[in-house]
Amino acid sequence: MGIGIDLGGTAIKGGIVNDQGEILVERLIKTESHRGYAQVVDDLVALIKELLCSSPEETVVGIGAPGILSSDGSTIVSCPNLQWQNVSLKRDIESQVAVEALLVNDATAACIAEAAFGSTQGSANSVMFTLGTGVGGGVILNNRIISGAHGVASEFGHMLMAANFYDCACGKNGCLETFSSATAIIRYCRMRLEEGYSSILTATPNFDGKAIIDAAKASDALAGEAVNRLAEYLGWAIANISDIIDPEIVTIGGGLSYAGEYLLDKIKRETIKRLTYPDYARPEIVLAKFRNEAGLIGAANLKRFL
Amino acid sequence: MGIGIDLGGTAIKGGIVNDQGEILVERLIKTESHRGYAQVVDDLVALIKELLCSSPEETVVGIGAPGILSSDGSTIVSCPNLQWQNVSLKRDIESQVAVEALLVNDATAACIAEAAFGSTQGSANSVMFTLGTGVGGGVILNNRIISGAHGVASEFGHMLMAANFYDCACGKNGCLETFSSATAIIRYCRMRLEEGYSSILTATPNFDGKAIIDAAKASDALAGEAVNRLAEYLGWAIANISDIIDPEIVTIGGGLSYAGEYLLDKIKRETIKRLTYPDYARPEIVLAKFRNEAGLIGAANLKRFL
Repeated sequence: MGIGIDLGGTAIKGGIVNDQGEILVERLIKTESHRGYAQVVDDLVALIKELLCSSPEETVVGIGAPGILSSDGSTIVSCPNLQWQNVSLKRDIESQVAVEALLVNDATAACIAEAAFGSTQGSANSVMFTLGTGVGGGVILNNRIISGAHGVASEFGHMLMAANFYDCACGKNGCLETFSSATAIIRYCRMRLEEGYSSILTATPNFDGKAIIDAAKASDALAGEAVNRLAEYLGWAIANISDIIDPEIVTIGGGLSYAGEYLLDKIKRETIKRLTYPDYARPEIVLAKFRNEAGLIGAANLKRFL
Repeated sequence: MGIGIDLGGTAIKGGIVNDQGEILVERLIKTESHRGYAQVVDDLVALIKELLCSSPEETVVGIGAPGILSSDGSTIVSCPNLQWQNVSLKRDIESQVAVEALLVNDATAACIAEAAFGSTQGSANSVMFTLGTGVGGGVILNNRIISGAHGVASEFGHMLMAANFYDCACGKNGCLETFSSATAIIRYCRMRLEEGYSSILTATPNFDGKAIIDAAKASDALAGEAVNRLAEYLGWAIANISDIIDPEIVTIGGGLSYAGEYLLDKIKRETIKRLTYPDYARPEIVLAKFRNEAGLIGAANLKRFL
């Protein structure tokens, strides 16, 4: 059993998760971060107290948050979605409720959920990619999360791959997430359409990543090109990660993992082409099990992966 | 105190290392692997017995070897320098002498030596690059070496960077070591000289990496271009490694580290350009302390980094 919180820009989810990874109790409140940090902390404290009523024996709360956390897990250094900078969230919660508050990056929380109860269960060394608006990640080695010396490990989306036609939001050019995210494939298709390519995507001008994947599955040439490009760069990144930490298994989650085996097969092929020891040291590549609940389930299980 | 062995293609070094990282006793024998595996094992056993006479209280021997080791540390899966494949070195030593034999990749052993007594001492999260004929590496996270699920972690030399004018010995095109090793800069200069570039290197037709660095320091344009290219790709690799594991410190060893601050400054500049959080999460980049004794010192200290 464990209490987990998934702190997002729009909503805060809290829940009690049992030892099989099932959510027994779940509460959802709006974040409304425009009210200021103190108000959100008050809401978090109230939420934790409510969850403790259902499970009074708990002494730890795991909190997954988007952004950069300090390596000691005490501070949210930067959380653009909530407009927080250098807030001592651990201290501010622990001063108001008698629990140990542990912070974790939300993508790492998802990686924990998969390792504890999902697609990477049983592997001591696993890596997760979350393919959504951007590309996030998580790393678990020897059954421990890797947060890094400055708390910014597993920022896979910002690995530099090659020159690209648009700059990343981070300011660099060539980041993995400008090739292998939903944003990346949407921008790629738009760019090609402006160049005069034809595609069934023109029927829906505000197409999203899902529409591109559906079009690719329906043999649309442009959409297929965009998805192949995503898989090529992602396979390249997975191969390079294998040269650095040699994971046993890599799991693919996030909104784009909706594409299922269709995308997974492409990613596997592109990875194998680039591995140093494709026959001897090939990471298994799988689809993530959890969707929207991954952050909550992972946060509730954080302590045993520290 | 610890007993370490550095098993190389030409020589086997064995020694006793004290808790300050000083080698108290050192023995050197020729490997002569053409005699076959059993003979080399016999020599290793005799060497260990001799060292145990000087330090009878030791119960562990660390053995650093070039090549791929199984992730459980029992087997040398592949060691081209000794023409060994799938040899159970741990078992074959332990059956003949009453010690625990622990195996480690030689580049990882060097990384341990630096972490225990050298340039990265005091850092729980460090990375080492060895720039020589190829590019090797080591990773220590949370004070433990990272060997990976298949024993092939920290193969930095085979990270794919970009298309290059010659293929890597591993069969891939674009590996880091075809940009950032001694071999890489020699081949680059030779290629340019064949194209008609002029350089003071033409005075010494069989120039080596050291000659290129000396020429670059003496403002030779071609040599400078080769060294800048080395630093550019190495900086790129360090930045990508930072996005994955966010080390506190990166140390540069191997023959080319002879170039000293001249090369280090270039590597630092090229890394910072490519970091995702250059102001917040910047790994320190330093020169390795140990040279030829790194493997022996690291092997003798393996146990506390497992």
